[in-house]
Order: sequence, then C-alpha cells, then structure tokens
Amino acid sequence: MNNMKKSFASDNWSGACPEIMEALQDVNKGHMAAYGEENEAATAAAVQKFKEYFGPDATTFFVYNGTAANVLATGHLLRPYQAIVSAHSAHMNEDECGAPEKITGSKILGIETEDGKIKPEQVRPFLNSIGFQHHSQPKVISISQVTEKGTVYTPEEVKALADFAHENNMYLHMDGARISNAAVSLNLDFRKFTTDAGVDVLSFGGTKNGMMFGEAVVFLNPSLAVDFEYSRKQSMQLHSKMRFIAAQFERYLTEGLWKKNAGHANEMAQLLEQKLSGLGITITRKVQANGVFAIIPKNLIPEIQKVYSFHIWDETTSEVRLMCSWDTTAEDIDGFADALKKFL
Amino acid sequence: MNNMKKSFASDNWSGACPEIMEALQDVNKGHMAAYGEENEAATAAAVQKFKEYFGPDATTFFVYNGTAANVLATGHLLRPYQAIVSAHSAHMNEDECGAPEKITGSKILGIETEDGKIKPEQVRPFLNSIGFQHHSQPKVISISQVTEKGTVYTPEEVKALADFAHENNMYLHMDGARISNAAVSLNLDFRKFTTDAGVDVLSFGGTKNGMMFGEAVVFLNPSLAVDFEYSRKQSMQLHSKMRFIAAQFERYLTEGLWKKNAGHANEMAQLLEQKLSGLGITITRKVQANGVFAIIPKNLIPEIQKVYSFHIWDETTSEVRLMCSWDTTAEDIDGFADALKKFL
Amino acid sequence: MNNMKKSFASDNWSGACPEIMEALQDVNKGHMAAYGEENEAATAAAVQKFKEYFGPDATTFFVYNGTAANVLATGHLLRPYQAIVSAHSAHMNEDECGAPEKITGSKILGIETEDGKIKPEQVRPFLNSIGFQHHSQPKVISISQVTEKGTVYTPEEVKALADFAHENNMYLHMDGARISNAAVSLNLDFRKFTTDAGVDVLSFGGTKNGMMFGEAVVFLNPSLAVDFEYSRKQSMQLHSKMRFIAAQFERYLTEGLWKKNAGHANEMAQLLEQKLSGLGITITRKVQANGVFAIIPKNLIPEIQKVYSFHIWDETTSEVRLMCSWDTTAEDIDGFADALKKFL
Amino acid sequence: MNNMKKSFASDNWSGACPEIMEALQDVNKGHMAAYGEENEAATAAAVQKFKEYFGPDATTFFVYNGTAANVLATGHLLRPYQAIVSAHSAHMNEDECGAPEKITGSKILGIETEDGKIKPEQVRPFLNSIGFQHHSQPKVISISQVTEKGTVYTPEEVKALADFAHENNMYLHMDGARISNAAVSLNLDFRKFTTDAGVDVLSFGGTKNGMMFGEAVVFLNPSLAVDFEYSRKQSMQLHSKMRFIAAQFERYLTEGLWKKNAGHANEMAQLLEQKLSGLGITITRKVQANGVFAIIPKNLIPEIQKVYSFHIWDETTSEVRLMCSWDTTAEDIDGFADALKKFL
Repeated sequence: MNNMKKSFASDNWSGACPEIMEALQDVNKGHMAAYGEENEAATAAAVQKFKEYFGPDATTFFVYNGTAANVLATGHLLRPYQAIVSAHSAHMNEDECGAPEKITGSKILGIETEDGKIKPEQVRPFLNSIGFQHHSQPKVISISQVTEKGTVYTPEEVKALADFAHENNMYLHMDGARISNAAVSLNLDFRKFTTDAGVDVLSFGGTKNGMMFGEAVVFLNPSLAVDFEYSRKQSMQLHSKMRFIAAQFERYLTEGLWKKNAGHANEMAQLLEQKLSGLGITITRKVQANGVFAIIPKNLIPEIQKVYSFHIWDETTSEVRLMCSWDTTAEDIDGFADALKKFL
Repeated sequence: MNNMKKSFASDNWSGACPEIMEALQDVNKGHMAAYGEENEAATAAAVQKFKEYFGPDATTFFVYNGTAANVLATGHLLRPYQAIVSAHSAHMNEDECGAPEKITGSKILGIETEDGKIKPEQVRPFLNSIGFQHHSQPKVISISQVTEKGTVYTPEEVKALADFAHENNMYLHMDGARISNAAVSLNLDFRKFTTDAGVDVLSFGGTKNGMMFGEAVVFLNPSLAVDFEYSRKQSMQLHSKMRFIAAQFERYLTEGLWKKNAGHANEMAQLLEQKLSGLGITITRKVQANGVFAIIPKNLIPEIQKVYSFHIWDETTSEVRLMCSWDTTAEDIDGFADALKKFL
Repeated sequence: MNNMKKSFASDNWSGACPEIMEALQDVNKGHMAAYGEENEAATAAAVQKFKEYFGPDATTFFVYNGTAANVLATGHLLRPYQAIVSAHSAHMNEDECGAPEKITGSKILGIETEDGKIKPEQVRPFLNSIGFQHHSQPKVISISQVTEKGTVYTPEEVKALADFAHENNMYLHMDGARISNAAVSLNLDFRKFTTDAGVDVLSFGGTKNGMMFGEAVVFLNPSLAVDFEYSRKQSMQLHSKMRFIAAQFERYLTEGLWKKNAGHANEMAQLLEQKLSGLGITITRKVQANGVFAIIPKNLIPEIQKVYSFHIWDETTSEVRLMCSWDTTAEDIDGFADALKKFL
Repeated sequence: MNNMKKSFASDNWSGACPEIMEALQDVNKGHMAAYGEENEAATAAAVQKFKEYFGPDATTFFVYNGTAANVLATGHLLRPYQAIVSAHSAHMNEDECGAPEKITGSKILGIETEDGKIKPEQVRPFLNSIGFQHHSQPKVISISQVTEKGTVYTPEEVKALADFAHENNMYLHMDGARISNAAVSLNLDFRKFTTDAGVDVLSFGGTKNGMMFGEAVVFLNPSLAVDFEYSRKQSMQLHSKMRFIAAQFERYLTEGLWKKNAGHANEMAQLLEQKLSGLGITITRKVQANGVFAIIPKNLIPEIQKVYSFHIWDETTSEVRLMCSWDTTAEDIDGFADALKKFL
C-alpha cells in the first residue's frame, strides 16, 4: 500500500473534502436531540436544503449508505410480490450481495443494456406479467444516474421512463450515487432531471463526492413517504447522532460544494480520456461523468496495478474502469499516463 | 431548543469528543482502499486493537450502529426458526421497531425482569421447546451490559449464562452499547466479563460514549464469524469509507479514551444521585453506570422539561431516567438540581 | 399405537368425515382449470357459498392450512414495521415456530390472559407506541374463536374489539380454526359474530372438524383483499388442483355439515365434562366448545396415556387438555372415564 | 366451460387417479397422530417407501406443493447471502411470483438456455463471485427434471452438474415436478439419475401425475436434512392430517402406479406429436416426456381454444405448449387433431 499512488479504483477511495470536515466540526457543539427528533436544528436545516433544490414537496430522510438508500427507497414502495425492473448492470442488481431481495423480498427483473441505460420499450415486455398471479408484479423502475457504465440520462430520457411508469401504475426510482456528476455533465439543476422529469423517489449520494458517510432518500412524490421513518428504523438505518449526517448534506448543498467537487472529478476524467487517447489507448464508452473505460493490454495490467489501483471491468476484453475523484489532480493523471507510456 | 440546557435525555444527545474528531482528521489523508478491503491500514489497525483487548481470537467487523450490531451479531448465528431469549426490556426487543424479527426472521422470547438482568433459571423453561417442531428453537441468549435499567452484570453472572447457554447448545450475545460504562463500574478489563466469561459475540458500542458513528461486532468465538462479511453487506451495513469508523475505534481504544469518557459519565451519575437524594428525591434503581432513575413529582415534570430534556420511564409511577454523558459537567448537575429545588 | 383407543389429543387426529370423502369423489371428474382460474366451477361455487354465510362482500381465498391462513390474512394487512396484538396463548404466537415473524417480518405483541380472550383495555397500552419510530406500530388485533383455552367470544366482545380496532386505525382478524364449534356453542349464525361484529378478515378452518385439508381466508372487508392472490402464491399456498379444497368447503357449508360435526363434538365435550366431574375430577375451565381442561393426578397420567392420547397443558398443575372430535363417541368417553376410574 | 373438451393446458388440470382416491379412502380410518408425529404409521410407511427407491439414506418430508418443495429444499441449504443458479426458464425463477426470493432471501442467478437444460460451463462464470463480498455467493444449482421446455437430463448430464457443484462447495437440487415422466422417458430407475448421479436434494412431485395434493422433499444427502422439520413448519407447510399426503405417496410408489400414469402420458405425447406432424404442423422441441411444443398458425389459436385449452408459449412465434396427462386418451388426441385439421 505504501508505495501506491492515488487510486483510480473508485471515487470512494478518496477521503472527505475539507469543507465536509469543517461542517462536522461546526455541528459538534453541545447537545442536540438524537435521531433528528424534536425538530433538531441541523437535520431540519438539511431537510430544508433539499426542498430548495428539489421543490417544496421533497421529503427527505437520511440513511447510512447507498445500499440502504436504494433498498429502502424502492422497498418502501413495494409489497414483496412486486418487482423492481432495472438494468442488469445496476448496482442494486449486481453489487449488493442480494440486499434488495433479502430486505424487500422482491424480485429484480434485469434488462441487458449496452450503455447501462434502459428505455421504456425494454420495460414493456414485463407488463405482460401484470395480473398473472404466477409472476412477480412489476412496480418500480430503477435507473442509475450516472449509470454504472459511465453514461448519463438526459431529462427527456428520464421523463419518458417516468411517464411510462406512471401510465402503467408503476413508480420511477433514481439511484443518484453520482447524481452530482450527472448534474455537472448535463449542466442542469438537479431538479430538471428529477422532480421535473417525474422521478418519484431518489437516492441522493454524496460519499463518492467528498462526504464521509450518509445518503439521502428524497421522496419527490411526497405521498410515498408516509411511514418511511419506520422502514428506516426497522432496517437499521436510523442514526442516533443524526446531526453528523445532516450537517454534511447541508454543507454539501451550500455554495456549490457538490458542483465544485463533481465538476473537478468530471474534468479530470476528460483529461484522463485525452491523455489515454493520446497514447493510442481505446476508450470504450462515452466519458460523460467521472469514469473512463479503456482497453489496456492484458499483460500490462498487473504491472500498472502495482503502482495505481483500478478495476478490471471485463476480463475477456481487457477493459478497465478508471474513476476520478474530487481530489484527483492533473499530476495524478500525468503520473498514470506516464506509467502507462513506460509499459506500452 | 435555544434556551435548553444540556440534556439528560440520552448519552447520544452529546456530540463527538475532541480526540475522536482528531482521529477523523488524522485518517483523512489521501486514498485508502474502500470497504476496508486490500488490508487497508486503518481498518487493520482497529481490528488488531480489538485483539489486544479481547484476545487473539477476537474477530471484528464494523457496522454503522447498535441496532445493526445486535441484529447481525445474533442473526448470523440463527436460522429463522431459532429464537433469541432476552429480557423483555432489552433494547433489541423493545426499541428497534421490530428490526430483529424482520431482518433475522426469528422470534424473540422475552423474560420479565425487575432489574433488566436475566438468570439461567429464567431461560430454562424455554428449553422445553427444544425438539418440538411447533415452537421456535431457543438458540441465542442476549444480554445488555449495561442493562436498559442501569444495572451491570458481574463476570460471574455472565459466566453462569454462558455456561448455561453452552451446556444447552446455545450461544451468548452481549449488547455492549454501554460496555465502557460497565467496565468502569466493575473496575475490570473488558476481557474479564466477555471473553473470559464465555461470551460468544459482542456488540461493542462507542457512540454513546463520545464517538460519531459506527459499532463493532466482535466474535470472541471466531468460528462463528465465518461469512459474516456477506451478512453485513447484504444487510446494508458495509461502509465504503471504512477508515472513518475504524479510526474512531482505534483511537477510542488507545490511551484509555473509552475509560476517561465512561468514567466521567459514571461519576457524574453518582454526583447526580447524591444531589437528588439530598433533595429528598427517591432514587428507584441502583446507580451502577451513567444512568439515574428517580421519582419526580408528576406535576413538576413538564416544568423542568422546559429547561432540561429527559425521558419519562414510567408514566404511572412518575419515574424518570436521567442519563449522564462524557460531556456532562458538575455545573450541569448543579443546574438541574437547582431547577428541581426551585420547583419542589 | 396399535392398542391405542381413540384419541383426545387433538381434533386433528381424526380423519375426514364421510360427506367430505364423497365431495372429493364427486368433484374428481374430468379436467378443470388449475388454480381455480378461468372461473373454474367448483371454486366459484365454494366462494359463492361463503357469500351466503358471510354476506355478499365476503371475498374468499383458499390456502392449505391454518398456519398459512393466519399468517397470510394478517400479513397482507401489514407492513413489517407494524405489529400484531394477540393473546400470548394465541396459536399464531405460540405454536407456529415463528411463522408470522418470518413470513410477515412483523412483531407479535402478546397479552397475558386468564381465559385466552383479550379485551380492548388490554390492547390500549400498546397504542402508546403509535407514532414513536422506535416501536413496532400496532395494526392488527388477532383473536381466536374458539380460543386456545376453550372459551368463546360473544358477539358483543368481538364487536367491542372491532370497534376499538377501527377507532384506532387498526384491523380485527379472527382465527377461526374452530369457528364451527364456536357457532354451535353460541347458537348463532357465523355472521353474527364475524361480519356483523366488525371482523375484517377471518381464517375459516374445517380440518379440525372433518375436512381433509384446506383453509379459507375470508375478507369481510373486501377492500383489504386486493392483490391477495399474489400474497398467496408467493407464500407457496396456491393449490394447483384447487377444486379439491373448494369442493370440501362447498360441501362443508351445505346442509349443515359443519353444524352436525361441531355440534356432536361439543356435545361429547359436555358429556366428558359430566363424566369427569362425576369422578371427582376438577374441571379447570368453562367447557364452551369441544375441549375439556381437567386436573388429573400426576402419577396417573402416564398410565392413562398408555391407552388414550391427550396433551398435558400445564406440567406444574397437572392440567390436561382433552379434545373431542366429530367422530368421538359416547363409548369413547365411557371408555376413558372407566379407565380413569380404574386408576383413581 | 361446459362445452370444453379435455384440456391440454397442463397436467394439473386432470383430477386424481382412481388408485389415489382409493388410498385416501383406505387411510381414512380412526384416529392417527397429527403431523406425522409419534411414528404415525402411514407417514412412516411412505417415508420408508422413498428409501426403497432412493436408497437407505433418503430422508423424506412431505409438504403441500411444488412451490414449497422447491423453495424449502433449496432454502434450507442457503443463507440469504447465498444464491441459487438455475436456468432462466426454471419454474422457480419464472413462475413462483418471487417465492424463492421472499422466503429464502436469496437471489436467483439465471442462465439463458435453448432447451431448458444447463451445463457446468454455464455455471462456471458465477464462480468468479465467490469470496467477493459485494456479490451473492452461488451455493445451490437447481435443475428441473423434466425441464420446463420438455427435455430430460441424462444421468451423465446430472452427474456432471453434481460433480461440478461438489467440486465447488455447492449443492445440486432437482425439481422433480415431473420426475416420473423423466424416469419413463429415460427408462431408468429414479435412483440412477438422482442418488447415483449425486443429487443432494430432490423435490418429488406427484400432483401432475395423478395425485390430489402433496409433494415430497427428499434429502439424498441426509446431513442436509437436519432441522428441516422447523423450516417446514415455519414456512407453513406442515399438514396436520399428514396421513392423507403420506398415503398418496405410499400408493403412488407401489406397483408402479407412478410408471403407469407417466408412461401413459408420455405415450399420448408421442401420439400427439405424430398426429400433428402428420398434419404438417411444426414440432419445435424434442418430445421427451408428456409435453409437445408446436407452431400453430396464429389466427387459428383462438378458434381451437374455444374447444380445447392450451397455453401459448411464445406469442411472437405462435408456439404453443400441449400437455398430456395420466387421463388423456387417444380419442382426446384424435379429437384435437380433427379440430385442428378442420381449421387448417
């Protein structure tokens, strides 16, 4: 570990940014009601902040992490005989060790995609199951913004899915683990591709973009939020010293901290793409946010991994994933490109 | 809120102590592997620290909170047709909104107690169910140290339960949300009333004693730890930036921070007991840790609650619970006693 | 087994009565749609029969057994963070190996009772939990008619609980495993102490009273039945050859078969009570249906159990439970009384 | 319904065969211990019968239906963070309304197949997840014999999967809803392609082949059977009047009843295939058991469905599934062929 350079393995290998550390320090004063109860001030302020961004109906609850935000946000809308429809590559389908199935009891119906994005016509075949008692009943469509393949839904694409969902008595959930990177990429306010596009419930993440811990479940359709506090508590996601999650989000949503961090990470990804292209490396997917997918010759991978961490995305094609973070520097990228150059 | 004095409502109304804030700052340097994977240094160090205290076999996993530690520590030992036996007053039975039942599928068999402590002879009747397919099969005994009624098990009492459990093919779990207060109260190393007394798995908490977030599941019987990482992930309790939980625990277990904080809280409870007794207030339970239970005349309660927060424990008897914290001061206690005196 | 006389162990030690066997034979003709689908005639007729007894709104689904009827009938009304309130002695709390907890994820809040019946004032304390996120939220009251202690609720008692439930935004479920014995005991139509008394959903059993298998979930509040077919299928309770459950119920509810069988069993219990009283045996509970509870001297029990099966209800008091069935005869009772007399 | 001819919709549209009705009548005598307890004779005899067929280690439990047999047989071998690998077309993946996910908490990893059969090399990619805490851990391979696409595994194919499973610390489950049809098709004793081929646990069905209700879970690896009675009870699958399931199986496995019925159904499928081929109808899959898959011109389907029931397997290709049963006659098949001819 000691000789390792900065990592491109994941944006959660980075630490917390200075402003977040400061917010934690600032809120650490005296006694405050536990669990965000009794109108505790830090939590109330953070909840209010989400209303500023997502509209006055946005109803926000804090949980510990993205796994929980995704599972609880969808599970609260579901009975166990109802199903979630998502891309097969969705984090909630592939990378949660079966958490949605265990916690909600529901089935996930996966859709194979090229770019991680799903379209209404890919969901449509599942509607045939509706009313047939032998099949799980599709009820929630879940999309990731940014997707696990580095792509970003346009507001129109989101709206098409939301409209489709609502026409068919379903809901639309967005996994926003990297929602800030998406907003920067689209150069749009969050609201344009969430509330205004018809998203019902959102997992809003900050840990991959400079926070220390905590995730927000934001009900944009507030009627769905009823009783969510019990789902949260029973699913072991109610933090006692709630102010410490709340204060991070409050700060994250102030003076564009989210935008500064995500903007920087996205920019670094662009730079990385350029450098790699310049070396003749094939970039396999559009670079729309803070991840770069590229083909690195199989024999070089172990060599480079001795100095830089990153994930192999597809063993068979030798495709790797390189994630940039709020603290990735141009020097880090130069270093990586230089190392690569040396081996090529 | 603004005019409120320091709270006696719960020890989790306090913030994080300065040393913990410092530890968070210190570990916030550069990139580290997420999830504690790849032998990430801060996590490895904290895990090692638990071995120092609990013996070389202690196998430790970090989760987000006490609810999760209790549910996962017991649930990992159980199939859903097996039951947990605990005091009826146990936090896991009464105050988790049914989390154990939902997450483990198991039943909790409650025992009525005077002082929050259970004895082997109270567990014995449940053994009649063993082998009878119509009944949940008792498999784990769970005790709280400190109990929810402010009392502390002696090592001999713990050992009697552990021996009973093992003789009957069961396990002993300890909910150590306030284990530091218990250790100070007993004036004993943790090990004496856990590992050495036969506890199989422990929930080790620090949030009520100056930490910000995080709880440890410590398997003292390491054979029970196999595959626990999957239970943790599937139950939404795997933190990505693990170093931030680990560093808190590493610091908490260094140079007696846990002891300093808990010792202070316990001392303040003693002082509070004296002051209240001096005012003629009836103290209803032995003060063994950082909680004081007392009868406050019913009509005074709303008045005092305007300036000091605390919980009414039993409406019918007008018994209240007053919790002291790592940051409670002698002045806070004087202030409370003075306020009470004024109203009496 | 071979030398055993007829059993008083349970009413499900008896076989199926001749009329039920005949119904099974009658419906066993040619092909019929599986799962009761496509308006399959036998199922449609049985469902209709329930409407005759319970009113035009009664919406009925067939499952395999009483465990399932109770768990699914209540579970369909609950989210996992909501709780069932029942007598501690309720079958669903004590004798289902934790099925409600596993399948619904909900907690059962037990009430200690003398006679197996609960009253609104015993449920009231649980209302304190409503709105408090740390506690399971009471949502369904479940009562057994006949109770596990052999007693029968009057329509007024049922209505008081139903009114209480509805006033507090809760539902009332009745476990009618022995509902026919209750109806005979009360000398009332089913409807008087179910639909008319405000019961929301009913488990209607016949297996203890001469059927072979199958149980009915009858929604008297039909709005609660929405989507129940999916709960049933997902909980593994949808029979393919549905006609064979349906035909039994159709026959059971025709020409008073239910009444003949239950009436006989109840009568036999009265006779047994007389005989035992005549021998100076203490009868411990009111004999209101087909069960007799009595004190039999501890040393005699093993002797008599060599020839007659029955359950020891309470080891400490030497109380036993003697169940009469649709096929218990006066000779069986004489035989039992004679055997007892011999040993006394 | 009244004008409908015999159905080709499913083999569970048929009733119970005469021998089964007789067995039910025969066992319906006097009292027998409930739940198969106390060594109740009919249950003991049926359990013994399975040992005759599957070897002395075969450990058998009766449940209500195939859904339950599959879910409990696999679920008992799994912790929720472990996964089932099966063909995507497997009944347990597609047609149980999500029962495996809800009841076991486990994920199903589906494999796309042409003919419903899976091969070790198709399972192998899932092994990459082993040891990676973010992924469900593959633990049980489940195959259907006969498959949902009408094909039959050879003993060698089963053995290859069993060996692969055991080499990788996994288990092999067989869904034998139509196992008798497979045995007849292979012209082999059950044992050759189950116990001897390394199957660990088997769902043995009879309802599609002339029984009324009930399914057997047969542990061929008896060490896996430990505590299964609690899984069964907690999952609502313990029948009180157990003798009525047991007696059916005892009779079913006597004097070749299973073989007579399945042999007949398979033969009828062969006849149907011939008749359809003779009419120029394309048969789409090998007819190895009692199902025939064929292309029927789209416009004719509604016409024929007015007189004969059957399922449309694939709307897009106009492929239909025609199932033969123990009571399908040559006249039924002639009738169907004639009807078809008329429309062609």
